[in-house]
Amino acid sequence: MATDDRATFGHLSREDLGLFTDRYELTMLRGYLESDHTPRATFSLFFRSLPTDRGYVIAAGLEQAIAYLRDLSFGERQLAHLRDEGFPGDFLDYLANFEFTGDVRAVPEGTAVFPNEPLLEVTAPIHQAQLFETLLINQVGFQSLIATKAARMRDVVRRHGDDQTLVDFGSRRAHGTDAGLKAARAAYVGGADGTSNEAAGERFDLPVFGTMAHSWIQSFESERAAFETFVEVYGADSVLLIDTYDTVEGARTARDVAREMDVDVRGVRLDSGDLAALSRSVREVLPDSMDVFVSSGVDEYFLRSFFADGGVADGFGPGTSLTTSTDAPTLNPVYKLVAVESAGEMRPSMKLSKGKVSYPGAKSVRRFGDDTFERDVVAERDEDVGGRDLLVDVFRDGDLVYELPSPDSIRERTLETLESLPADVRAIEDPAEYPVTISDGLAATADRTQAALREEMDR
Amino acid sequence: MATDDRATFGHLSREDLGLFTDRYELTMLRGYLESDHTPRATFSLFFRSLPTDRGYVIAAGLEQAIAYLRDLSFGERQLAHLRDEGFPGDFLDYLANFEFTGDVRAVPEGTAVFPNEPLLEVTAPIHQAQLFETLLINQVGFQSLIATKAARMRDVVRRHGDDQTLVDFGSRRAHGTDAGLKAARAAYVGGADGTSNEAAGERFDLPVFGTMAHSWIQSFESERAAFETFVEVYGADSVLLIDTYDTVEGARTARDVAREMDVDVRGVRLDSGDLAALSRSVREVLPDSMDVFVSSGVDEYFLRSFFADGGVADGFGPGTSLTTSTDAPTLNPVYKLVAVESAGEMRPSMKLSKGKVSYPGAKSVRRFGDDTFERDVVAERDEDVGGRDLLVDVFRDGDLVYELPSPDSIRERTLETLESLPADVRAIEDPAEYPVTISDGLAATADRTQAALREEMDR
Repeated sequence: MATDDRATFGHLSREDLGLFTDRYELTMLRGYLESDHTPRATFSLFFRSLPTDRGYVIAAGLEQAIAYLRDLSFGERQLAHLRDEGFPGDFLDYLANFEFTGDVRAVPEGTAVFPNEPLLEVTAPIHQAQLFETLLINQVGFQSLIATKAARMRDVVRRHGDDQTLVDFGSRRAHGTDAGLKAARAAYVGGADGTSNEAAGERFDLPVFGTMAHSWIQSFESERAAFETFVEVYGADSVLLIDTYDTVEGARTARDVAREMDVDVRGVRLDSGDLAALSRSVREVLPDSMDVFVSSGVDEYFLRSFFADGGVADGFGPGTSLTTSTDAPTLNPVYKLVAVESAGEMRPSMKLSKGKVSYPGAKSVRRFGDDTFERDVVAERDEDVGGRDLLVDVFRDGDLVYELPSPDSIRERTLETLESLPADVRAIEDPAEYPVTISDGLAATADRTQAALREEMDR
Repeated sequence: MATDDRATFGHLSREDLGLFTDRYELTMLRGYLESDHTPRATFSLFFRSLPTDRGYVIAAGLEQAIAYLRDLSFGERQLAHLRDEGFPGDFLDYLANFEFTGDVRAVPEGTAVFPNEPLLEVTAPIHQAQLFETLLINQVGFQSLIATKAARMRDVVRRHGDDQTLVDFGSRRAHGTDAGLKAARAAYVGGADGTSNEAAGERFDLPVFGTMAHSWIQSFESERAAFETFVEVYGADSVLLIDTYDTVEGARTARDVAREMDVDVRGVRLDSGDLAALSRSVREVLPDSMDVFVSSGVDEYFLRSFFADGGVADGFGPGTSLTTSTDAPTLNPVYKLVAVESAGEMRPSMKLSKGKVSYPGAKSVRRFGDDTFERDVVAERDEDVGGRDLLVDVFRDGDLVYELPSPDSIRERTLETLESLPADVRAIEDPAEYPVTISDGLAATADRTQAALREEMDR
């Protein structure tokens, strides 16, 4: 009746990382090696369109992408599994010594990105670059999705509120444990102030927040007894949950307990009902020194309504909507071959699949505008079109050449980015389209590549 | 420039599990201990309403829940973190020796469940039971969400198609690595045939499938050369991706390559365009011996349309929609205190928060109907209302007393469950409501508990 740790906890050690990939990546890798077809290739990670009601995406997850590229390996148990699945010995020997030797350029975390702009480009022998597809999309896609969701909430509390505290309360509803941890990180770098997840706080050095649950209240003979006991233990750090029975009555009890015990209790939390109306009533009952925190159904749309309805609060705890990006739960990023070496040269490559065309060749993303971003141009890597390139060097010949910024400095970058994005692009519904054009050089290469493909097919 | 493994990979070892919780669980735990208030309590894990267009939910994730309950612990580094965060030494000593000593009853994986029916109930000293809230919701909620999504697809291919192969292709779009692994498991126990995720295959002993990507095709001089090279390596196991340039032309090339190389190539994959129409054209081009696999945008709604439009295929690779349950990305499960010991007796407990009321007391879920499920009654644990109880004993006094079923046998249970659910409850849009009533005993207890609370408040 014993359960196997690995079968249950789902943790990935360094030795496990190699297997976190789609079977076809391994199949192709073996095929490339066995057919001695290992040209250098460039893969580009990007998304084709913005999720519903998103005017921009905040890039996140590069730190994790870097770790995977640097440390991915195959342990003995993992190789034994592949042997059982029919992969041959010389291929397993190759995997046992797998090492990334390529180049990577990427957009730093905290940068606003738009459709068809590469978040990351890998240039390496094709079999190496291929292997990372699954993990890179998984990590960069998810964190960018959540950082964007957090940035939208931060933007609303800045524009409509008083730049209130935002704390990720959503670990329980995140899709698994890695999502709980990474959503906490992504929310922070996207503009939140911290998380309720203790493990994420420990790992990523994030501020951790917490109050109490209804169960605490219910387990005592009365709400008052529950408050008193909590304040006895936590004193001025106490945040008392007041909606278990009647919110405004709960606020009065919280106030009275603080007064009678002569403790400068930090505040209260509301978690149900008409939160804007209740927050006003609660504010009237409480002394100024006590803060009001609001949770339950918090997202950017809720926040806008809350302020429009005259709600007053010092902080919010977005949960499910933040960690699952409920209204748009995927960014649908892709990782596409855009160039492949042929006769010693990198040749632009594209496919013609309907609705899934991508631009060929390694790229740069040029941004114009200083205090306010005006437009981007997606150009060929070495094309001179002005503006500043968003992509920076991360790996050269397998060596990490990028200084990883702290979550705090990424968060700072996101906040500056929000200031620089046009207001209508930041709108949380029906945002304006930020102007992104394709450079003349890239357009010409795309036309030429497409024409060559069609010619090839007609033969 | 070194990155820390744990900060990046997000893996959870046994020693990490204790920290994967919300700060408030730890805050309350310390509070319960310091105030010497550790009554026995029952917590119930359930959801209040079905996600949009869901007529039922398939319970999943119990195996992982069991592992957490049994093995959760705090390592030295984790305890040091909590010390730095201000938790006192005697509390840390308690955590260092944390052990679950309670009882658990749960619905076996693969069982259909409905709103207000407990998927799992924990009865233990309140500080123990409290700690698990975050992890239990996280794991059981996510896997149940994905098992349900897979079951819906399985049901459509059974009713409208030919019970085709369904393979999880969605790891890259899952929310992190744990979601990729657990979605693969949940999809399988929910009725899929396997996954593309090699690590999930290895961990959970699931069939792993894979074909090739567009990059394989693009990296060669021609589609034909790409096919030939692949077939040279993989022979009859080859599944050739035919939509890189022109799907029907690609099918002809695949057929010709198989013929010329005299290999009984397994089949082809289509990944773009009007898939129903293209599948018919491709079927006409290919010999009967070659299978047609379809991917790109596959979900239950797509499958229904595909068959309605006369599409023909031997297998499908649902991706993003499966691993993120895109149309309904959360089940919103909760874990609520329903009973607490007082004067030696378990006293039913509830809160009055608006829109968030839950039924008090430990429960049983009684199902009526044999070949076809007719109705459920949510009753008090020891109430005799007929039917069969869905909840089984899992832990008694901290000892595991439940034999964990294999993924295969859970999958079998799900398939039988689908057969037994009324057809209109299984509808993928606007499903009928399955009849779930509250027993007389539970209704009376709820009224009594609520009246007592209101009386208490009026005093």
